[in-house]
Amino acid sequence: MESTELRFFTKPKLKKPIAVEGLPGIGLVGKLAADHLLHELKAKKFCELYSSHFPPQVIVKDDGTVTMLKNEFYYVKGKKNDIVLIVGDFQGLTPQSQYELSAKIINVLEGVGVSLVYTLGGLGTGKVVKNPRVFGAATDIKLIKDIKKHGVIINKKGGGGIFGASGLLLGIGQLRSMQGVCLMGETLGQVVDAKSAKNLLKVLTKILDIPVDMKELDKRAKKTEEDLRKIEKLQQEQVKSLEMAALNKKSAEEDITRYIR
Amino acid sequence: MESTELRFFTKPKLKKPIAVEGLPGIGLVGKLAADHLLHELKAKKFCELYSSHFPPQVIVKDDGTVTMLKNEFYYVKGKKNDIVLIVGDFQGLTPQSQYELSAKIINVLEGVGVSLVYTLGGLGTGKVVKNPRVFGAATDIKLIKDIKKHGVIINKKGGGGIFGASGLLLGIGQLRSMQGVCLMGETLGQVVDAKSAKNLLKVLTKILDIPVDMKELDKRAKKTEEDLRKIEKLQQEQVKSLEMAALNKKSAEEDITRYIR
Amino acid sequence: MESTELRFFTKPKLKKPIAVEGLPGIGLVGKLAADHLLHELKAKKFCELYSSHFPPQVIVKDDGTVTMLKNEFYYVKGKKNDIVLIVGDFQGLTPQSQYELSAKIINVLEGVGVSLVYTLGGLGTGKVVKNPRVFGAATDIKLIKDIKKHGVIINKKGGGGIFGASGLLLGIGQLRSMQGVCLMGETLGQVVDAKSAKNLLKVLTKILDIPVDMKELDKRAKKTEEDLRKIEKLQQEQVKSLEMAALNKKSAEEDITRYIR
Amino acid sequence: MESTELRFFTKPKLKKPIAVEGLPGIGLVGKLAADHLLHELKAKKFCELYSSHFPPQVIVKDDGTVTMLKNEFYYVKGKKNDIVLIVGDFQGLTPQSQYELSAKIINVLEGVGVSLVYTLGGLGTGKVVKNPRVFGAATDIKLIKDIKKHGVIINKKGGGGIFGASGLLLGIGQLRSMQGVCLMGETLGQVVDAKSAKNLLKVLTKILDIPVDMKELDKRAKKTEEDLRKIEKLQQEQVKSLEMAALNKKSAEEDITRYIR
Repeated sequence: MESTELRFFTKPKLKKPIAVEGLPGIGLVGKLAADHLLHELKAKKFCELYSSHFPPQVIVKDDGTVTMLKNEFYYVKGKKNDIVLIVGDFQGLTPQSQYELSAKIINVLEGVGVSLVYTLGGLGTGKVVKNPRVFGAATDIKLIKDIKKHGVIINKKGGGGIFGASGLLLGIGQLRSMQGVCLMGETLGQVVDAKSAKNLLKVLTKILDIPVDMKELDKRAKKTEEDLRKIEKLQQEQVKSLEMAALNKKSAEEDITRYIR
Repeated sequence: MESTELRFFTKPKLKKPIAVEGLPGIGLVGKLAADHLLHELKAKKFCELYSSHFPPQVIVKDDGTVTMLKNEFYYVKGKKNDIVLIVGDFQGLTPQSQYELSAKIINVLEGVGVSLVYTLGGLGTGKVVKNPRVFGAATDIKLIKDIKKHGVIINKKGGGGIFGASGLLLGIGQLRSMQGVCLMGETLGQVVDAKSAKNLLKVLTKILDIPVDMKELDKRAKKTEEDLRKIEKLQQEQVKSLEMAALNKKSAEEDITRYIR
Repeated sequence: MESTELRFFTKPKLKKPIAVEGLPGIGLVGKLAADHLLHELKAKKFCELYSSHFPPQVIVKDDGTVTMLKNEFYYVKGKKNDIVLIVGDFQGLTPQSQYELSAKIINVLEGVGVSLVYTLGGLGTGKVVKNPRVFGAATDIKLIKDIKKHGVIINKKGGGGIFGASGLLLGIGQLRSMQGVCLMGETLGQVVDAKSAKNLLKVLTKILDIPVDMKELDKRAKKTEEDLRKIEKLQQEQVKSLEMAALNKKSAEEDITRYIR
Repeated sequence: MESTELRFFTKPKLKKPIAVEGLPGIGLVGKLAADHLLHELKAKKFCELYSSHFPPQVIVKDDGTVTMLKNEFYYVKGKKNDIVLIVGDFQGLTPQSQYELSAKIINVLEGVGVSLVYTLGGLGTGKVVKNPRVFGAATDIKLIKDIKKHGVIINKKGGGGIFGASGLLLGIGQLRSMQGVCLMGETLGQVVDAKSAKNLLKVLTKILDIPVDMKELDKRAKKTEEDLRKIEKLQQEQVKSLEMAALNKKSAEEDITRYIR
């Protein structure tokens, strides 16, 4: 297996497609929003991305069958613009793999004619708020003006950075003349935040002019949280059960680097 | 040396071969089971796998001679199906190398005509039980039904993941039309667990219809545990003796990343 | 994206060019000095370097637009010698990438005819001093004599090392017949040190015989510090907000290495 | 720069050459012994090895000039056998690079006709002893018998491993039909141990039948220790001065892995 592999099921012909990315990140805000969009729009999968930069595990589904960790590309026909959705289980584990995976995603988007990408994320503020705001950034000043009209807040106090795919898709896109907007839902950051995802999605669907029912989002967020807790619990059991195991209590890597002077 | 190297001693012609993998993991359950099978069936080695993703050390045997860390492939003639065994000293140290090594193993299996692989592991529950159960997962629903008939438990509460080679061989196999079953012996996880390995092996040999004497398993498990303790003790001495050494108490890597802002 | 990419805007024809590097390091001494030089000399950018060895993030500017992390090459016409400046947001995150990036920088310098490079850094002494001294090292003994004449101190007590680009540009240059001098401003190390940068710059501009006004340096240092604090604050919020998040409290990598025995 | 680069000054024609490796390791036992041999035998350098797997720094010598970290190959004419010496500043920082560098070293040895290599190291026992013993391991049983005759102890209690170049040169050599012996001086491990190095060297020179004066070894060991302490002190200052620095107190890598779920 190459470090990252793409599997295309079809190569869709799309009308002025706009992409929306929502991979796991702070408060799962982006993932919840994109997953909801995916289900409500009944989008069709056209590509899967596998990578050795994801954790080395498979997921066991409820029926006992396994499936590799992956990112997925979906599309759905729209009025003015078709929509491409990028969702997934994980982002790359290492800094370097983040660049590699974002570049691969841009490749796929270019291949189906996307010239504008919306990336969805959370902005962790450490505070609980009643009505989470939506913050934004973009590849150029014209887009900044556009999103401001939809109530997106540009952090006047300025500065800061956007980590992970939501940032790098914009940055790498910029080097390849692909435009991009990052929308970030205000969130505490420590919990899966369906409310923030909902507010984020309201802004996005207004911008894209695609009406989406929000009823199922809460239920879906709950299911997502439960799934994650199950995986987490299992991981903890596995790790705990190893803590006192007979060998290599510390990682071999650690020992090695300490060993060699 | 390439990052991973295969050394073939022979290229066996096999009859509908089924593979069984048992590399080191939780409670050593999978390794104990596969090593026992290897000795009882008097299997023949046909391939060795060396990798720079194992720890950078050689093992010193009792007579003072050294040997590289490796994974090994064995085969044995069967009635309906020949058996290929995958055993070894270690799994890859990094997440990425886990993918690389599992893909290499699948390559070897494909090369000798394997289309079904059983991976053996432990399921750490943190509890001591009298009669460890055997849990399972598989690449497709038909296999799930088959193993259920042999008393294998499909975790109804669902979800979770399988780490390391036992998971990835199924996942990568799945992408290449190789079928797979993972059998996991229930285990505390903190100790080498021969009892769990025995129960696991009982189920596997029933499924494969190959009778195997279990008498020697306990003795072998004890030897394995002793060997590991020796290696561990030595490693600890080496590490401890370095803790206060004159230079680089922390790994140079750590210092570097902290140094560069 | 390749792991490191160069983007040339122009390929300047330069007269006996001398390079000056000032990337982020101890006390930001080198970066402050080089950035000041850049602005005062109104140097022109001719090349950008992007790398997956920088952190996986984009910077958000005050107007809400984003920009990739990068290193930059500028040039300015001089009397006897044209000057090439190397500035940037970051150095490589890993030991290995430090070598790769320094070699790429040397490539660019060779490409425009540079045969002598000054690298600027801080020498952290852990002490607060009234008038920070300037320490030096070089690729050959003749250069050592030259800089001594300008009051640069060669650490008689000897020994030690120079980390990061300021060291490796000299070392890799040495293997390719490029001469180099490292100038290090004495600094506490724990704060952005404009005073040390000023003293360093005084020595450098005397050596290079290019008069530079120092008035703006303090103001610029203050702005640099503020920008960094903003980024830091945001990073801390993001990290903190994740500390208690539902999943993977410890890095997946860590768990993995602990998991596999 | 490639990840590892060899620079040959000459390609010596050697008579049945035997190699001796002494890179930094536990108690510096191997390094002290090999460095002493190098100076007493007045060996000539024929090759340098540079690598991005060493720490990203240059060493500053007493006169202020810098030099890259490296491993070096020397040779000296002998009676029955010429001797090749492998010495250096560092071993590879990561597990994987250990394999890569050992394979590169074996390449050089094969290139000048070496078919037997002695690797020198320390065996950290955590105890202070009056007269440090010499332990050994080898690639085959005949060599084990040979070294036993010279008083080398084969650890009867058996098992264990040899980390780093001293182990891997034997292991990788073994895969390429190069024979090898590892000699380990008993040592506390926490201090530079000239006494252990002396005992080790006595055994080695008896085996190789090359008389070597030991008078200077203590002095040289003291100098080595001082040099290392200087480097260490400087490193600590640099690191300490950064601990409270404005940015990225924790490594960016760490933050990233924690950030991405």
